[in-house]
Amino acid sequence: MSRFDPNFTDNVINSMGPRTSPRFRQLMTGLIRHVHDYARENELTVDEWMAGVQMLNWAGRMSDDKRNEGQLMCDVIGLESLVDEITFTLASEATDAPTATAILGPFFRADTPFRANGDSIVRTPPAAGDGQMAFMHGRVVDCQTKKPLVGATVEVWQACTNGLYEQQDPAQEEFNLRGKFRTDQDGRYSFYCLRPTPYPVPDDGPAGKLLQMMDRHPFRPAHIHIIATYDNYKPLTTQIFDSKDKYLTNDSVFAVKDSLVVDFLPRANDPQAGLELQYDVKLVPAPAE
Amino acid sequence: MSRFDPNFTDNVINSMGPRTSPRFRQLMTGLIRHVHDYARENELTVDEWMAGVQMLNWAGRMSDDKRNEGQLMCDVIGLESLVDEITFTLASEATDAPTATAILGPFFRADTPFRANGDSIVRTPPAAGDGQMAFMHGRVVDCQTKKPLVGATVEVWQACTNGLYEQQDPAQEEFNLRGKFRTDQDGRYSFYCLRPTPYPVPDDGPAGKLLQMMDRHPFRPAHIHIIATYDNYKPLTTQIFDSKDKYLTNDSVFAVKDSLVVDFLPRANDPQAGLELQYDVKLVPAPAE
Repeated sequence: MSRFDPNFTDNVINSMGPRTSPRFRQLMTGLIRHVHDYARENELTVDEWMAGVQMLNWAGRMSDDKRNEGQLMCDVIGLESLVDEITFTLASEATDAPTATAILGPFFRADTPFRANGDSIVRTPPAAGDGQMAFMHGRVVDCQTKKPLVGATVEVWQACTNGLYEQQDPAQEEFNLRGKFRTDQDGRYSFYCLRPTPYPVPDDGPAGKLLQMMDRHPFRPAHIHIIATYDNYKPLTTQIFDSKDKYLTNDSVFAVKDSLVVDFLPRANDPQAGLELQYDVKLVPAPAE
Repeated sequence: MSRFDPNFTDNVINSMGPRTSPRFRQLMTGLIRHVHDYARENELTVDEWMAGVQMLNWAGRMSDDKRNEGQLMCDVIGLESLVDEITFTLASEATDAPTATAILGPFFRADTPFRANGDSIVRTPPAAGDGQMAFMHGRVVDCQTKKPLVGATVEVWQACTNGLYEQQDPAQEEFNLRGKFRTDQDGRYSFYCLRPTPYPVPDDGPAGKLLQMMDRHPFRPAHIHIIATYDNYKPLTTQIFDSKDKYLTNDSVFAVKDSLVVDFLPRANDPQAGLELQYDVKLVPAPAE
């Protein structure tokens, strides 16, 4: 790389002052080095760099309370899933196998209401003929002792069969296909939901443009989002994926892990649902402070 | 890095389809590899990654016709200056030394009007007592033959003594401290301007936040922006810097090059200006198409 000023990158890094926090200094040093190496290795042109800046500005302009396009751009290049893997690897190096994690995604809502076990999260039915009802149930347990965790919170959300989450779709009742559940005295939770269906990530912004330029499809395999929490245990954010889905091996945001693939089985004698999914969540104790 | 899935990054890269353009495939391959290596090397946490996403979204929300915060974030980590150096290095490997280039910066306006040689770009005087008037003049020449280029365009812009460009400051007349000039039959241009003064880049957005976290000052050394163009020559974008400036060695956007440092000299017998700057611009012929 000696065609270019060999001191330039060090000069930029060394311009950081003494009051920079050690972790921020580390993160900026690595960022500056990688960004500069990237530009030199690829002889990035002014036009190419400016096209990238315009994509980032576009992402920011599209983002609001209901949409995080910057996050979605990271997702389609695998960064959120990678950061999730790093977090999970570090957390599990010290413990037995807890449930694997997966990315939060941009459609989480902090204000989802509690519902009773056995209730349905399907508040607005899908269009006639669309969707299969499923009964999802299981236990929340300590990943080491397997003891059930009583009063743990299980929060779930899923897209409707039209590929839209409720906040993207005015036709869906607020909090449709979302709910929080508290485990009973046996550590059990249960609810009715839809068998999830694949959907494309929003492709009308820069993330969609990026996918198109990379000649990639925008689809995510069918999945249900789960967050499980319990006092003195590490909160778990994950997704479970339908084993029958055609996009299982080429998720547009790279979130699938083998241990998160589940089978929907036929369910007999339940007028509310023809399918059943049994799924236990294993939480890892939080280290004492 | 074997603690993490050794195939993850290749999977993301290999998801690109066959219709991706070769250059875009190269750029995305390098970007994905560097971003993933960065995350793994620094064991980037979910919170740190999300803080970065929020900074980028914030930059987009602040950007409009008059402000490009995404560009400014690149500038403070040296990326625009580096891309400029790469472009200049590639262009000059084949030719004699043309005038060095420097970054465009976020305050260029495409619609700046032509003015007559000898005119003043100071349309709104600085606050009383502020600023020194200077007469800037020189020739535009072919960098190899030194022959003057007749009818070349020289466009200049500078900030006022309050640190603001006219589009940032309602108190300045539109196009104050900007102008386009056409060289005369000897290839000469001339105009009156202010001796430039240092100013901070806007620090009320994420770029300012980044500077603050890196414990860096936001100041740019005093400079005048120049774009020179002539048919069948490569357009030149540069900045010239006052040799007396205290920020010459620590420009917040790393744009200073030794060959762009100039001396303002005393000017006698001119009631309009006490200083003079002679500056010749050397353009390089464009390769025949």
